[in-house]
Amino acid sequence: MKLLEDRIRNEGIALSDQILKVDGFINHQVDPFLMKEIGDEIGRHFDEKNITKVVTIESSGISPALMAAMYLNVPMIILKKQASKVLNEDVCQTNVTSFTKGTSYELTLSKKYVTKEDNVLIVDDFMANGEAAFGAVRLLEMVDAKIQGVAILIEKSFQPGRERMDKLGIEVFSLARIAKMEKGNITFGKADE
Amino acid sequence: MKLLEDRIRNEGIALSDQILKVDGFINHQVDPFLMKEIGDEIGRHFDEKNITKVVTIESSGISPALMAAMYLNVPMIILKKQASKVLNEDVCQTNVTSFTKGTSYELTLSKKYVTKEDNVLIVDDFMANGEAAFGAVRLLEMVDAKIQGVAILIEKSFQPGRERMDKLGIEVFSLARIAKMEKGNITFGKADE
Repeated sequence: MKLLEDRIRNEGIALSDQILKVDGFINHQVDPFLMKEIGDEIGRHFDEKNITKVVTIESSGISPALMAAMYLNVPMIILKKQASKVLNEDVCQTNVTSFTKGTSYELTLSKKYVTKEDNVLIVDDFMANGEAAFGAVRLLEMVDAKIQGVAILIEKSFQPGRERMDKLGIEVFSLARIAKMEKGNITFGKADE
Repeated sequence: MKLLEDRIRNEGIALSDQILKVDGFINHQVDPFLMKEIGDEIGRHFDEKNITKVVTIESSGISPALMAAMYLNVPMIILKKQASKVLNEDVCQTNVTSFTKGTSYELTLSKKYVTKEDNVLIVDDFMANGEAAFGAVRLLEMVDAKIQGVAILIEKSFQPGRERMDKLGIEVFSLARIAKMEKGNITFGKADE
């Protein structure tokens, strides 16, 4: 998506070969019009898949997921990050460790909101190792929902998340794919269409 | 706002005289069209205030704040909840203790995104004791931003947040005001207009 690539090129900051800061328009300050365009783009791509729920992971994925859900005319579900296990049979949980941030949490879904009748689209801001997205996949498998795809704003293609998701046979739709980074320099790969 | 009151009446669950669950349309599952209506209502109310930034607190406030920011044609800023203090002169932090949840965190704002030139509207989902909103106010005061008001989806009027905010001279615009709750029963007060 040219609009997003341009914003990353102009406002993103490659702090190292691993860390990209997009605090100015995605993570900390959010441009609602960019999110609307992104949500529409994702929605158009998955329009024929009979999506019934858009699922995201708190909190940076919420803005684009909300806009995609609006386009697709379905509810959005926010998977919650809990510090510890909840002992409650109404929820599913799975442990997620973020290598990037060095943190670990229990990703949580109430069984009330996604069931085996659902066709789910996962939306998140970044995919690097794919830990968060795989956590979402595990939760959705626990409730036997059908996973129709994963939409990602920024894929770090030099990390293994995408490849691992491909191996599961789950479509990844990335609006911007970063092939390589070094401090102060970002090289894009071909985005999905 | 009748639309929101109706949803709370029909789908909200008063677990006790203190705890209201709105997981089905605000917190865990989110209705994007309700959020759009709420964002428009908040935007219309503050339309003449020359708002330059909408500020919210991760993560349940993000959806309505994004829609209000879209209406007002300004960026949204997500105040981050950090587990510990960041030693970095580019950020402001303030400690917030949530009595409802029994948790404590460092609410964090990068100085780059809100300055003394800004007219800020704070948007959040709930106001009870007002701890989160007061944390936002403290951060915005640290950067000398002008606070034009606080928009709240659901105010628990029997708790002191609203009154404390009134005393600071900060306008609170609550779309639904709950005068009283008991298990299974919710009594509304008059919403702001």
